[in-house]
Amino acid sequence: METLRVELGERSYEIAIGKGCLGGVGEAVSKLSGVSPRLALISNPTVHALYGRAVEESLDSAGFETATIIVPDGEEYKGLMWVEKIYSELLRRRLDRQSVVLALGGGVIGDMAGFAAATYMRGIRFVQVPTTLLAQVDSSVGGKTGVNHPLGKNMIGAFWQPSLVWMDMDVLSTLPERQLLAGLSEVIKYGVIWDRGFFDYLREARKDILSLDAQAIARLVRRSCEIKADVVAKDEREGGLRAILNFGHTMGHAIETLTGYTKYLHGEAVAIGMYLEALLSERLGIMKQGGAEEVRALMDAYGLPFALPDGLKTDAMLGAMAVDKKTVGGQLRFVLPEEIGKVRVSEPVSEEDVRSFLNSL
Amino acid sequence: METLRVELGERSYEIAIGKGCLGGVGEAVSKLSGVSPRLALISNPTVHALYGRAVEESLDSAGFETATIIVPDGEEYKGLMWVEKIYSELLRRRLDRQSVVLALGGGVIGDMAGFAAATYMRGIRFVQVPTTLLAQVDSSVGGKTGVNHPLGKNMIGAFWQPSLVWMDMDVLSTLPERQLLAGLSEVIKYGVIWDRGFFDYLREARKDILSLDAQAIARLVRRSCEIKADVVAKDEREGGLRAILNFGHTMGHAIETLTGYTKYLHGEAVAIGMYLEALLSERLGIMKQGGAEEVRALMDAYGLPFALPDGLKTDAMLGAMAVDKKTVGGQLRFVLPEEIGKVRVSEPVSEEDVRSFLNSL
Repeated sequence: METLRVELGERSYEIAIGKGCLGGVGEAVSKLSGVSPRLALISNPTVHALYGRAVEESLDSAGFETATIIVPDGEEYKGLMWVEKIYSELLRRRLDRQSVVLALGGGVIGDMAGFAAATYMRGIRFVQVPTTLLAQVDSSVGGKTGVNHPLGKNMIGAFWQPSLVWMDMDVLSTLPERQLLAGLSEVIKYGVIWDRGFFDYLREARKDILSLDAQAIARLVRRSCEIKADVVAKDEREGGLRAILNFGHTMGHAIETLTGYTKYLHGEAVAIGMYLEALLSERLGIMKQGGAEEVRALMDAYGLPFALPDGLKTDAMLGAMAVDKKTVGGQLRFVLPEEIGKVRVSEPVSEEDVRSFLNSL
Repeated sequence: METLRVELGERSYEIAIGKGCLGGVGEAVSKLSGVSPRLALISNPTVHALYGRAVEESLDSAGFETATIIVPDGEEYKGLMWVEKIYSELLRRRLDRQSVVLALGGGVIGDMAGFAAATYMRGIRFVQVPTTLLAQVDSSVGGKTGVNHPLGKNMIGAFWQPSLVWMDMDVLSTLPERQLLAGLSEVIKYGVIWDRGFFDYLREARKDILSLDAQAIARLVRRSCEIKADVVAKDEREGGLRAILNFGHTMGHAIETLTGYTKYLHGEAVAIGMYLEALLSERLGIMKQGGAEEVRALMDAYGLPFALPDGLKTDAMLGAMAVDKKTVGGQLRFVLPEEIGKVRVSEPVSEEDVRSFLNSL
């Protein structure tokens, strides 16, 4: 096992990365200080069928009395209604302040379980066992938890750091290819915002990565977590720098909202968002011509979408972006690349500029 | 105006205490750094009718565009349903990350508005303008926010510190006497847990306090806030010491839950809880005989209830206490006085001991 420490003062925690280590999670959780024997395992039907038993047995051996809570799979269920059901179950099973909520699943499970942990009895501990590439490289670092609201994605939530992240690379072997690729979209993002060399590596190692070569995957997960941990350690609550992690997300979220969270996986919508925001950056003269094409080519090499879906109206896009959390005083801001490996949060962009850009596509 | 600083590192804030200062709140809020012009004022119909216009005009003069959100009055509405309505309104009115949620009202408004602020866009700033004595001496310090769940009081919530607390003593003149007395119950608590001299002052100054003598009230509010700020500064997240603030609350919350949050005001239920827990402390040999009688006599002098209501079954009390947040691994703990002015968190008390104590009443 390799471990990576996320430095956040008293909220620091460790990410353990291994191969075939799922059965070790119970013992690792039991080492958290003063932990209660009552624990909740939150998962979805698909992941639970594959890995639930192994995790439950591991928790059982470590002396935990596990309340398993299954929530349906999919971004469209990531709402307050399911969080309420989780609260009821936590109370019914009498989880206490020293209890742990363990999330076994992808980003939806992690976001929802993390928000429930953040707000149950004003906050109990939270352990992540991410089972998708996206959750491993994205939601395992940074402490963002939350749910969607009909008027916008991730509008309700809390910053709540996990006490431990436990990752078994073997679980990726059962991940549908489409989900793997969607995860790679966020991996590509780290290259664009922070590390030109990593961007190039992703192009060169494409074949190894797509065949899930153990070394290539571990390198990619580790480097992604390192970059994110770097950024988050410098700005835990998104006062400034951390906003760069939202590259591709302003437009990506709007696309997800307008397609009802069903047409695209999160990473796919972000792939389109990254290409569009890279193009916008060129249009505004911030990135020199050719950068957006490099981004597009890498998306394409991994089979990711990059074109705005047919029928999405400019007005609807502008409306959806206006409720984005980066909007300040009604003005739109984007994270825009200056070159591959370096981005900045833009000055406010006028609605007319965004409108004419979207109309030109 | 007097100010009192609550020391919590980067989450420190000021409590301003004055007389006739309500119209100054807008200017004070506008001095918070980088604040957005879009602000939400959350209040209830009664308080809004009395003080809403003065606050709105003050905010207007200071350049804010205020979205007023009215929620119904009463502990029974302090639930997720109303928090969801607040979220929808915040989104509809496009409050952004730099916006402030201002709570104008008592504890219910403060708890709910604070929780909405804590979880809207993963946390925006929060200003309290408490209009009841209870909210001034209790919820204005400590950052506890949250709502009730059908299975227990304040089970869903977050620690979220206000950025400013603004108190006008004049608002107490319109507070119904029953509410004033309920607030005094928490004031008496500070005497019991921390300061024998303050406890004695409350007995001696009874007449001045009940006639709302300006000096007596300001002294009482200030000393209560000081004691709470002292405790909270030493233990923000209730790891240890802070639990002493829950004196009277384990039984008090159970009584509130079992009477559907309607029969008693919070402070009244806590008054009963304090007397019962003081009696339990004597019964367990922790406090010497006579202490509970002193507590009872002071409650009585202020017209507060102290007897368990007729018809409350011991089993129901035990069941309601079992979901209390201080319960760890299924064992009951209480905050028990050693003497007036000093309490401790008890070792776990067996269910049989609590049962036989309750049956003996």
